[in-house]
Amino acid sequence: MNSQPDNPSPVKELFDQLMAVAISEAEQGLAEGGLPIGSALGDRQGRILGQGHNLRVQQGDPMAHAEISCLRNAGRRSNYDQLILASTLMPCCLCAGAAIQFGIGTVVVGESRNFSGERGLMESRGICVVDLNHAGCIEMMASFIARHPQLWNEDIGR
Amino acid sequence: MNSQPDNPSPVKELFDQLMAVAISEAEQGLAEGGLPIGSALGDRQGRILGQGHNLRVQQGDPMAHAEISCLRNAGRRSNYDQLILASTLMPCCLCAGAAIQFGIGTVVVGESRNFSGERGLMESRGICVVDLNHAGCIEMMASFIARHPQLWNEDIGR
Repeated sequence: MNSQPDNPSPVKELFDQLMAVAISEAEQGLAEGGLPIGSALGDRQGRILGQGHNLRVQQGDPMAHAEISCLRNAGRRSNYDQLILASTLMPCCLCAGAAIQFGIGTVVVGESRNFSGERGLMESRGICVVDLNHAGCIEMMASFIARHPQLWNEDIGR
Repeated sequence: MNSQPDNPSPVKELFDQLMAVAISEAEQGLAEGGLPIGSALGDRQGRILGQGHNLRVQQGDPMAHAEISCLRNAGRRSNYDQLILASTLMPCCLCAGAAIQFGIGTVVVGESRNFSGERGLMESRGICVVDLNHAGCIEMMASFIARHPQLWNEDIGR
């Protein structure tokens, strides 16, 4: 019998590749003294169309959440429905609103333990949401929140 | 009998003043060749804390909806609940999401005839939404959509 090797599915590989870019963005944000949240926009052929990270501290811009920076960097587009938006953390209402308004088909998140975000709202508007429950993302965010609770609360309007 | 003069309420005056700023931003956007949508953020003492307009065309930034530009220009804040966000047009899901996430107390809109937007979502999350049904806002947007339907559709991800 020809047993199949235990390979991950192509879709899972695509998600992991995109998340790796989002994580590198989060790490860059942390190195700059900002919030460690990163994002990447890709297509189903594995091309990266945009990437970015939270810039609240670096640019004094409260709207520059990771997903907003990423979508800004991806430039003007007429259609997003076949695209995948990855974020190291479950999107808040601002970023979920962006995904909904522009009709992004799939949102892949690193984790939702440190912030439950707006999964329900996105799913109610037809977005496929996948939570990778990524240990590195969980640890990076938990560590940051423990060290900078005030900045974290400011970033989510708490 | 001492009859009261037929003055508008102080709150209505506050909304009208803020909307005048938002309209001037929309007119500036139109003059720059962009979408005529403007926004202003103010407090209950009549101070303007930020203002901005849609910059999709001018900066190639699909996230720079009027409300997002305005909130970016208003800078970092720890609390928005006593503030009023005015927009010439009913916010889309991106901009409604921003208002919800940051806990903006009141959203005043010029009109919702050309775009019904996300009034229900904002109200369901506790935001007071006031629609001024402003003839000038309605005409400005209707005229733009008739002349540039493709750009309008791009801006709302349609």
